[in-house]
Amino acid sequence: MSADPTGQGPQDHSGRAGPTRGRGDPAQLVPAAAGGDRTAVARLISLVERGGPPARQVGRLTFPRSGNAYTVGITGAPGAGKSTLADGLIRLVRAAGQEVGVLAIDPSSPFSGGAILGDRVRMQDHAVDPGVFIRSMATRGHLGGLALATPEAVRVLDAAGFPLVLIETVGVGQVEVEIAGEADTTVVVVNPGWGDAVQANKAGLLEAADIFVINKADRPGAKETARDLEMMLMMTQDLGEWTPPILTAVATTGEGVDEVWEAVGRHRVFLDQAGLLARRRSSRLESEVRAIVSSRLEQHAYQACRGEEFHGLLSRVAARQLDPYAAAEQVLRTSGGGS
Amino acid sequence: MSADPTGQGPQDHSGRAGPTRGRGDPAQLVPAAAGGDRTAVARLISLVERGGPPARQVGRLTFPRSGNAYTVGITGAPGAGKSTLADGLIRLVRAAGQEVGVLAIDPSSPFSGGAILGDRVRMQDHAVDPGVFIRSMATRGHLGGLALATPEAVRVLDAAGFPLVLIETVGVGQVEVEIAGEADTTVVVVNPGWGDAVQANKAGLLEAADIFVINKADRPGAKETARDLEMMLMMTQDLGEWTPPILTAVATTGEGVDEVWEAVGRHRVFLDQAGLLARRRSSRLESEVRAIVSSRLEQHAYQACRGEEFHGLLSRVAARQLDPYAAAEQVLRTSGGGS
Repeated sequence: MSADPTGQGPQDHSGRAGPTRGRGDPAQLVPAAAGGDRTAVARLISLVERGGPPARQVGRLTFPRSGNAYTVGITGAPGAGKSTLADGLIRLVRAAGQEVGVLAIDPSSPFSGGAILGDRVRMQDHAVDPGVFIRSMATRGHLGGLALATPEAVRVLDAAGFPLVLIETVGVGQVEVEIAGEADTTVVVVNPGWGDAVQANKAGLLEAADIFVINKADRPGAKETARDLEMMLMMTQDLGEWTPPILTAVATTGEGVDEVWEAVGRHRVFLDQAGLLARRRSSRLESEVRAIVSSRLEQHAYQACRGEEFHGLLSRVAARQLDPYAAAEQVLRTSGGGS
Repeated sequence: MSADPTGQGPQDHSGRAGPTRGRGDPAQLVPAAAGGDRTAVARLISLVERGGPPARQVGRLTFPRSGNAYTVGITGAPGAGKSTLADGLIRLVRAAGQEVGVLAIDPSSPFSGGAILGDRVRMQDHAVDPGVFIRSMATRGHLGGLALATPEAVRVLDAAGFPLVLIETVGVGQVEVEIAGEADTTVVVVNPGWGDAVQANKAGLLEAADIFVINKADRPGAKETARDLEMMLMMTQDLGEWTPPILTAVATTGEGVDEVWEAVGRHRVFLDQAGLLARRRSSRLESEVRAIVSSRLEQHAYQACRGEEFHGLLSRVAARQLDPYAAAEQVLRTSGGGS
C-alpha cells in the first residue's frame, strides 16, 4: 500500500478545507517520513502539491533535513520510453540494494496513471517493494506552480532518506524542460528518426542534457539520429568539460540500460571531482529564491494585466487615446504594486 | 546640421539637471518636429533616451500623432554589412522621393559613430540631405531600457511625419533581437559561411526574420549558406503563410539591394492583404504595455535580489539554515513590494 501512493495523490480531494489535525500535520509527518513511514511521505507531497500555508510548513521542516539525495532527471517527448527506462534504472538501483524515490511529472507517464497494460504490470512489481516510492505530481493551477513545487517534493523525498530521486518529466514546454534540467544529472530520451532530434532541439532539451539516450534503438535510423544529435550539439552548444554521451538502448528488453546507469555514475563522479556538484546545487538554490521572488511579482503582473479593465485600457491604446506608459501606470496603480 | 544629429546624442551631457525651458520643452518641440524641424526631432530623441519625466511627456505628446510610419528592422552580426545595406535602401527610398528616418541601435554601426572611413563618406551623402534623418541610440543603464526606449524613439520619427523608419540593431543578445523583431518587416543580414547561419540561429534571429539577405555574396559559400538557412528554417520554424525569402546581395556595389527593397514591399503587401499589419501593431502595443508593467516589477525584483543582504540570505540558504521561501519572503518584505 505505502509504495503505491497514487491513491494519495491529486485524486485525494476529499473536500476538507485543510488537512486533518494529526493525519495532516507536517510537524508530525516529517519525522514520521524520516523514520521510514511511506504514507507520511505521500501525505507530505500531497500537502506540497496543494500549496498554501501547510506547504510552506512542509518546506520549512524538510529543508534542513535535505541536501543528501542525488537527483536524476529523465525527460523527452511523450512516448519516447522514459518510464520504461526509469523502470529499468529502478531495477538496477534496487539490485544494488539502494532505495529510490520517483517523481513523475509527465501526464502521459504510466507512473502518473496514463498507462498501457504492460507498463502497469511492470509498475506493480515496484508497488510491493518498500524500497521504491513512486509518486505523480499534478500541475497546480498557478504561475510557476510545478516548477516551484517540484524541488519541494524532491526535498520531501530527500528528507525521508532516499539517497536517489528520479524525476521524470515530459520534455515539452519550458517549465517541464526547466524542471528536468534542475537535476544533478539530466538524461534526455529520444527515439530514432530525424524529427525527434529536431523536436528535442526546439524544446530546448539539447541544452539541458548531460546524457542522451536513443531509446527504441532496434528501430531503423538510430545511427542517423546519433549523428543528428552530434551535429546539433556542435551547432548549438558551447561544450564545456563534459560532452554529453549519446547512448543507445532498447528499454523494453533492458538492452543498454546498464550503460545509461554507468553514464549517470560517470557524470556524478565528474561533477564531484570538478567541484561542480556543490556549486550547481548552490546556484540552483539561488535560482529557486529568485524564481520565488519573480513568481510572486509575476503573479502580481499577471493579475494586473488581465480582465475587462485591462482590455479596456488596451483598446484605448490601440485607438491612440492613451499611451503605453500611461496604460502601464494605470495598471500598476490599480493593482497597487510595483511602485 | 539637422540631418547629422549624432552631436545631440548621449554625448550631449551638459550637466544640466533637466532640459532648458523652451529648447527642451516637449510641448514646443513636438509640434516643431511635426512641422519639419529636424533639430527638434533630435532633441526629442535625446529626451527619450535620457528617460524620466521629460521622456514620459514626449511619449504622451507623440503617441496620438503616431501610427503612420512603416518600420523596417535590419539586424545581423557585427560586420555583416547592415549599415551598407541600410545605406543602399536609403538611396532607393530617396530616389523614389520618400523621406526616411533611421535609428541605429548597433554600437558598431557607422551610423552610430564606430565607422571606417568609407562608411563615413557614404554617410555624409545623407548628412546633407534633409529628407534623411539618422540617429543613434545608446544603451540606457537600466533593465529593459533600450527595448522600451526604441518604440518611443520610433514614435518621435513617426510623429515627425517620416513615412518610413529603418531600425538597425546588431543581432546579438535577446534585447537587440527583440527590438529588430518589433518592426513591421524584419530583415536579417548574414554572410556566406556556415558559422554565420548557426550564429543567427543561436541568437534567435531565425524566428525574427521576415526576409534573409546573404550579404557579401561574392565571397565563397553563399549557396551553402542559403541551403543551411533553408534547412534551419525547416528544422526550427513552423512556417505560416509567409516563407521568408533568402536573398543574396553585395551591398558595397549595390548588387541585390533592389531585390531586398522589393521583398520588403512584397512583405508589406502580404501583411496588408492578410489583415496582419493592424493586428501585429495592436499586439505590439499590448506587448509594450505588458513589457512596461513587467519591467517595473522586474526592476523591483532586481533591486530586491542584490546587495549584501541578499547574498547573506543566500549563504544561510546554502547552509540550510533558511529555506528558499523564507528567504524570498524576507527579500519581498525588505523591498516592500509584490505582497
